[in-house]
Amino acid sequence: MQHLYEAIFYDPKVNLLFRDEAIIQYMLQFESALAQAQAICGVIPGEAAQVISECCQVANINKEQLIADAALGGNVNIPLVKQLTSVVNQKDAAAAKYVHYGATSQDVIDSAVMLQLKDAIDLIAKGLDVLIEQLTLLVETHRNTVMIGRSFMQQARPITFGFKVAHWLDGILRSKEKVDDLLKENFVLQLGGAVGTFHGMMGRGLMVAEKMSGLLGLKMLSIPWHTQRDCLAAIATTLGILNGSLGKIAKDISLLMQTEIAEVFEPSGKGKGGSSTMPHKRNPVGCIAILANVQRVPSLVATMLGTMVQDHERGTGTWHAEWETISAIVQLTAGSLRKATEVTNGLEVDKEQMLRNIEITKGLIFAENISLALAEKIGKQEAHELIEKCCQEVQRSGMHLKNIVLENTVMRQYLTSSEIEGLFDPVRSIGLCEEWIKRVLNI
Amino acid sequence: MQHLYEAIFYDPKVNLLFRDEAIIQYMLQFESALAQAQAICGVIPGEAAQVISECCQVANINKEQLIADAALGGNVNIPLVKQLTSVVNQKDAAAAKYVHYGATSQDVIDSAVMLQLKDAIDLIAKGLDVLIEQLTLLVETHRNTVMIGRSFMQQARPITFGFKVAHWLDGILRSKEKVDDLLKENFVLQLGGAVGTFHGMMGRGLMVAEKMSGLLGLKMLSIPWHTQRDCLAAIATTLGILNGSLGKIAKDISLLMQTEIAEVFEPSGKGKGGSSTMPHKRNPVGCIAILANVQRVPSLVATMLGTMVQDHERGTGTWHAEWETISAIVQLTAGSLRKATEVTNGLEVDKEQMLRNIEITKGLIFAENISLALAEKIGKQEAHELIEKCCQEVQRSGMHLKNIVLENTVMRQYLTSSEIEGLFDPVRSIGLCEEWIKRVLNI
Amino acid sequence: MQHLYEAIFYDPKVNLLFRDEAIIQYMLQFESALAQAQAICGVIPGEAAQVISECCQVANINKEQLIADAALGGNVNIPLVKQLTSVVNQKDAAAAKYVHYGATSQDVIDSAVMLQLKDAIDLIAKGLDVLIEQLTLLVETHRNTVMIGRSFMQQARPITFGFKVAHWLDGILRSKEKVDDLLKENFVLQLGGAVGTFHGMMGRGLMVAEKMSGLLGLKMLSIPWHTQRDCLAAIATTLGILNGSLGKIAKDISLLMQTEIAEVFEPSGKGKGGSSTMPHKRNPVGCIAILANVQRVPSLVATMLGTMVQDHERGTGTWHAEWETISAIVQLTAGSLRKATEVTNGLEVDKEQMLRNIEITKGLIFAENISLALAEKIGKQEAHELIEKCCQEVQRSGMHLKNIVLENTVMRQYLTSSEIEGLFDPVRSIGLCEEWIKRVLNI
Amino acid sequence: MQHLYEAIFYDPKVNLLFRDEAIIQYMLQFESALAQAQAICGVIPGEAAQVISECCQVANINKEQLIADAALGGNVNIPLVKQLTSVVNQKDAAAAKYVHYGATSQDVIDSAVMLQLKDAIDLIAKGLDVLIEQLTLLVETHRNTVMIGRSFMQQARPITFGFKVAHWLDGILRSKEKVDDLLKENFVLQLGGAVGTFHGMMGRGLMVAEKMSGLLGLKMLSIPWHTQRDCLAAIATTLGILNGSLGKIAKDISLLMQTEIAEVFEPSGKGKGGSSTMPHKRNPVGCIAILANVQRVPSLVATMLGTMVQDHERGTGTWHAEWETISAIVQLTAGSLRKATEVTNGLEVDKEQMLRNIEITKGLIFAENISLALAEKIGKQEAHELIEKCCQEVQRSGMHLKNIVLENTVMRQYLTSSEIEGLFDPVRSIGLCEEWIKRVLNI
Repeated sequence: MQHLYEAIFYDPKVNLLFRDEAIIQYMLQFESALAQAQAICGVIPGEAAQVISECCQVANINKEQLIADAALGGNVNIPLVKQLTSVVNQKDAAAAKYVHYGATSQDVIDSAVMLQLKDAIDLIAKGLDVLIEQLTLLVETHRNTVMIGRSFMQQARPITFGFKVAHWLDGILRSKEKVDDLLKENFVLQLGGAVGTFHGMMGRGLMVAEKMSGLLGLKMLSIPWHTQRDCLAAIATTLGILNGSLGKIAKDISLLMQTEIAEVFEPSGKGKGGSSTMPHKRNPVGCIAILANVQRVPSLVATMLGTMVQDHERGTGTWHAEWETISAIVQLTAGSLRKATEVTNGLEVDKEQMLRNIEITKGLIFAENISLALAEKIGKQEAHELIEKCCQEVQRSGMHLKNIVLENTVMRQYLTSSEIEGLFDPVRSIGLCEEWIKRVLNI
Repeated sequence: MQHLYEAIFYDPKVNLLFRDEAIIQYMLQFESALAQAQAICGVIPGEAAQVISECCQVANINKEQLIADAALGGNVNIPLVKQLTSVVNQKDAAAAKYVHYGATSQDVIDSAVMLQLKDAIDLIAKGLDVLIEQLTLLVETHRNTVMIGRSFMQQARPITFGFKVAHWLDGILRSKEKVDDLLKENFVLQLGGAVGTFHGMMGRGLMVAEKMSGLLGLKMLSIPWHTQRDCLAAIATTLGILNGSLGKIAKDISLLMQTEIAEVFEPSGKGKGGSSTMPHKRNPVGCIAILANVQRVPSLVATMLGTMVQDHERGTGTWHAEWETISAIVQLTAGSLRKATEVTNGLEVDKEQMLRNIEITKGLIFAENISLALAEKIGKQEAHELIEKCCQEVQRSGMHLKNIVLENTVMRQYLTSSEIEGLFDPVRSIGLCEEWIKRVLNI
Repeated sequence: MQHLYEAIFYDPKVNLLFRDEAIIQYMLQFESALAQAQAICGVIPGEAAQVISECCQVANINKEQLIADAALGGNVNIPLVKQLTSVVNQKDAAAAKYVHYGATSQDVIDSAVMLQLKDAIDLIAKGLDVLIEQLTLLVETHRNTVMIGRSFMQQARPITFGFKVAHWLDGILRSKEKVDDLLKENFVLQLGGAVGTFHGMMGRGLMVAEKMSGLLGLKMLSIPWHTQRDCLAAIATTLGILNGSLGKIAKDISLLMQTEIAEVFEPSGKGKGGSSTMPHKRNPVGCIAILANVQRVPSLVATMLGTMVQDHERGTGTWHAEWETISAIVQLTAGSLRKATEVTNGLEVDKEQMLRNIEITKGLIFAENISLALAEKIGKQEAHELIEKCCQEVQRSGMHLKNIVLENTVMRQYLTSSEIEGLFDPVRSIGLCEEWIKRVLNI
Repeated sequence: MQHLYEAIFYDPKVNLLFRDEAIIQYMLQFESALAQAQAICGVIPGEAAQVISECCQVANINKEQLIADAALGGNVNIPLVKQLTSVVNQKDAAAAKYVHYGATSQDVIDSAVMLQLKDAIDLIAKGLDVLIEQLTLLVETHRNTVMIGRSFMQQARPITFGFKVAHWLDGILRSKEKVDDLLKENFVLQLGGAVGTFHGMMGRGLMVAEKMSGLLGLKMLSIPWHTQRDCLAAIATTLGILNGSLGKIAKDISLLMQTEIAEVFEPSGKGKGGSSTMPHKRNPVGCIAILANVQRVPSLVATMLGTMVQDHERGTGTWHAEWETISAIVQLTAGSLRKATEVTNGLEVDKEQMLRNIEITKGLIFAENISLALAEKIGKQEAHELIEKCCQEVQRSGMHLKNIVLENTVMRQYLTSSEIEGLFDPVRSIGLCEEWIKRVLNI
């Protein structure tokens, strides 16, 4: 994440959790909990644990030194342990030998990642609640706001805007459930030592792990997952899907904001979406951010799936490739969520423009109404061909289809003029929009 | 899926469900169920439904004509409905007008895809049961089979082969749960007509949908998901994760089959893994297939996430991009599963070679044992430096580390010779392998 | 490639080259050329070469047997050589021992892939000539066709349609050059035997390779590239970029076909783009195919880049993953090209609608003209603020901006009414469209 | 790029070019050159240009303010122009109105990206020269270093280490050519204003562009490429391929460093590759970094190909998604290059271990030698079957194949004992390694 672009694509609150200092602090949180758990289990002395825990502060760490030293061992935990040991040693030489006792770098880094992702996804879950509330309100407000439905970006048949938003909401509700499931299931402690066998913890490794899992609020592992990455991959894919559903919202809004359509607008704000050269434009800046993010996240998820194929008891590069990738997935998804929340909070809906747009085909979008009404009487194929001719006449003559139908003697054998009026009424053409909305709102 | 490669990468049983004819039949199954459900709900006459259902046989369809005509409308359902209508018309002109009544192409194609995927994933779920059984057996058989654990492909510390397999099993067990969840939640009926509003079904669309969902064994939709694709995407990601976990197995086995390691082998069979030019080779052909598939699936999943960003009420190309992509994901994953099952059924494990390999570092892999034992007495840092020197001597002199330690006067102040013997015993160096195994086997 | 979708997404002419039978024939072409080259170089007897060459016919091969046997060795060449040897043996037992002499499976399969891709890319190069011709014609025809330029899908400033197409053409011209470069550089013979050292060809391997390269029309290799895949990867990326440039065309046309914009249309044809339920729609079916393909190709290219990381002298799965992936990239790109050619051949352009659309902002899109004209006199910032107010008045009052400006006393100090008329003239607002076009057309 | 991981995966020298401040400075370099070029062309006064140029210093910019303001317009150029204008205004109010005159944000950002990438790729080109020199030296040093070649990670036949490195070199040489081509062709100026038509530069836009292209050292554009991104995509794919070829090197070395193989080692250094818990390990830390990077770059390239599908005259999110993606591709590739250079500079090669490993199959790897020698006399099939039996005897008896062959009466009819000795001599089994090497070294 480039700081320069933070306000454009991201959620600064979430990004805070991914700063260098935060990563270091999460690792120190692990080292502290490890010492405490080991003291409780009698693996190391309580006093040592006390000192170690007190030293586990990011302020004690020389970050630039850490970064420089990280190249040697290929991860940041090795120099961190070195520095931490030295800090502890200054306070209490006896305690120093219990720093990082029996743990391996991956125990620390994986658990730190889990703590970090859990905090981030907690924020995402809360953010989803807000978005769901807003979308629900939008659905309710626009239950009767008739607009045209579009298929392949062609006007098709009327729907309501509430119905459109209910689709968005339906997807987001499912994603919320999945995110809640993640919080219950996927944030798992990592602990096991070099190859996961707990050879260096006096046989009390599992007890220590149970304690640590309680202290850190992470799920107890079933077996070390140093090279079994499905839980982590599932975090990536769940966010990938959420991000996709947010992208769908942005796609629709950005299309509806087109100058020629102009039915819906991102809430305006001073300077927002303004162009440096075109004073009149209303750029979909919030949607643009989301649309940018959805171009990026799927590929990042692919990387997380690819890195699952890890070798033996420690992945040779596959593990390392995860670090910045999963971070980017979380940060981009959180950014999309924040932008979607901003965009849908105070979304401007131009109901009159929606009705105007319904009329621009001169009734053609109601052709199927006629077709179906006729089909009941003369069969689908015949009805289809009959109406097809009328539609061609609209395009040739520029007349409104309703008038052409009213004057068509064959059709008039089957349809009265008031029936025809009804078939051209948008409000009577929205089918079961309301029923679907009720299902989604669960009312 | 290229037929030529079917036996190499795929599971022919699963591939059958993805043949052109199968796809057509699934669509016909939808058209038949639609007619039946509509008859039950009083939307169309029962006799018409009867005739339509009878005509819904792939044998009635001219496939090459269908393929040729599909270009015009951009999907195969349009020409299918045309052909089906014509077939019905020959039997009963009155019934012909009720073919595909009130449905849109995407209703049919999406539901057909769901039926197809459900059948495929049923097979995958069953296949997983077999794999789980085999892996469980492997774990049990090799609980005490000591081998070296490897970190970054370097020998690290002893584990058991049962412990290694327990990792694989742990991931597969989680994937099995997720696959079962899919079967409960993700196979959803699609129905709604052109823009999803059920304008053409006499207001009884939801009732028809409920009936159809029962007839087809698909979950009732909450709202049409023509452009809300998270349920489909979740099928892709779940399989992507399963495929990754299968890839992990193949990775380990292929590495263990290296000539210089030679600890584990795919079961042999006449001609299997033979090379055209090297009669002595034992190629990991099953693993190769899986490793090939894991190179491909992550990217395909990325496509499925990318296509979630669909516009309005029908995706302009994003929908179409899913067809071959989700098929490929399912077929490749099923292929990986079949190959993993073949490979682990009768896997040859060379326990003696495992023990021989443990010895090739001349005791260096036990250095940490010494280090930890000393650390309890003289502190971690000092112990580490002491043992580091001994290790350098091993590399210089070619002597076994045990002998060097036995002769080291500083160390001997803290460690007896029998303690030292114990510290170099692989069997006593496997830590909690057994306890972890029990957790995974849930015993 | 699923046959069922051939007409929707693909170019059947190109797909012919990727059928099972074609793949087998390409391998046989290699085996034949190998024998001939070896005879010329005195490695095998001329009579044997003669018999082998005569037997290298796909008709001699039992395809289903080949497929079944391929699983054993993990590739189709092993059983092919077996069958071919048996066929030769029936004719001339002495010749049989020279079948596939000194070659390894990968020599055959890689060279066959190269022959196949070369044929396919020859067709693509020819297709590009047609597309370039059509785009050139479109540029020339529409040099003066004024339309609105759009930024973030918002109306921005006028351009010409010729200028827009010139962008497409510019990208396609560059891709054509790169495709021509591929044809010169990237289709390389593979030959070297098991590990590439030509141990089995009497020391005349390089001579044989030179001969074969001449016989097959493939470039002479610098060294066997069994696990050095950059030439193949470059074919994938070059097509990936071409496909992206085709996608840009489809994106623009599909957006311009929106009912509310309606400026440009795919050429119509009987039944084309028709919807089963909406008789009036004009679906962008050609563009949809391209847009679907551009969702898929980037991920497939990622796979080709990922598989470059091959181990030692033969890739364990990475090689195998290429086969269907590179095929898909070529077939999809060829399909996109064919569709782009169809779509731009007879593209309908509604010049009047383009002019009408320019007017829908009531002059707002010309605001910048005013701003710039004023800026020269009163500075950018002040001019910007002045015009911003006028724009707000347009939105408040519904008046045309021209009228508001004409009535603005401050502005009128600097601008005459005829200047103002000019600033609102689309034709005088297209800047250097014509000059850019000339650069692209190189005239 | 997370600063914390800079030393692990990246090249700090290259990363400097991607810092926030560097990005801002590149944009200011554009604004300065624009003013200068416009002054030369008589579009703005020379004095204004002078003042503007002097103000184009990153020190004049409040970065945090810039970041905060960027959200409003969706890019960093809008607030930059605002700040720059204000800085200029304080010096010379008259000059302020010529800041960013006639340009659009994308002109600035795209050109700044091009300047930045050009600088980065210049460094990469220079780095490649060093790597090529090192690899050439390795090839020359190890022309006669015999080792086993491996196919599917199985021992196959002898090669030389020089031959193996020649493969790496061959790929890198081709990548170097492509990188040089990029430097000649792909770093293109962006200029055109809002929709690319140069409406706001007194008709002298092309002249200004020609001048700027000279001032900035960027290629003159043929037409604005705001939404025609193939040149940028080609930078991504070229680096993607280079990165893949670097990955191949890392893959081979990491496999050769396995404890059980131990033929080649990354150069050692104090603390390098050490494990916190295993004092004896020699971790392939340089290779790990490269292998991590090759897991990530292919997906990022996919994003760059996907974003090529931009709409109309300014991409809605597709443009924005490029910024961090192309940066990551360049930074990761530069990191891989740096690590590959470190790893191959002083690579340790254990020739004796290579010879020892050749012997571990007890002559099986020479089976094909025998097979081929016999094939010349009794035909391939028969020879193959004969040797197959001997190989089975090796596996059954533990005897060396040479001895078995020497005792095989059938074989001895065709082969003398000295012939047999020769067929088991690794040095005489390397085929044309030397000839291939000469081709690659072009000597």
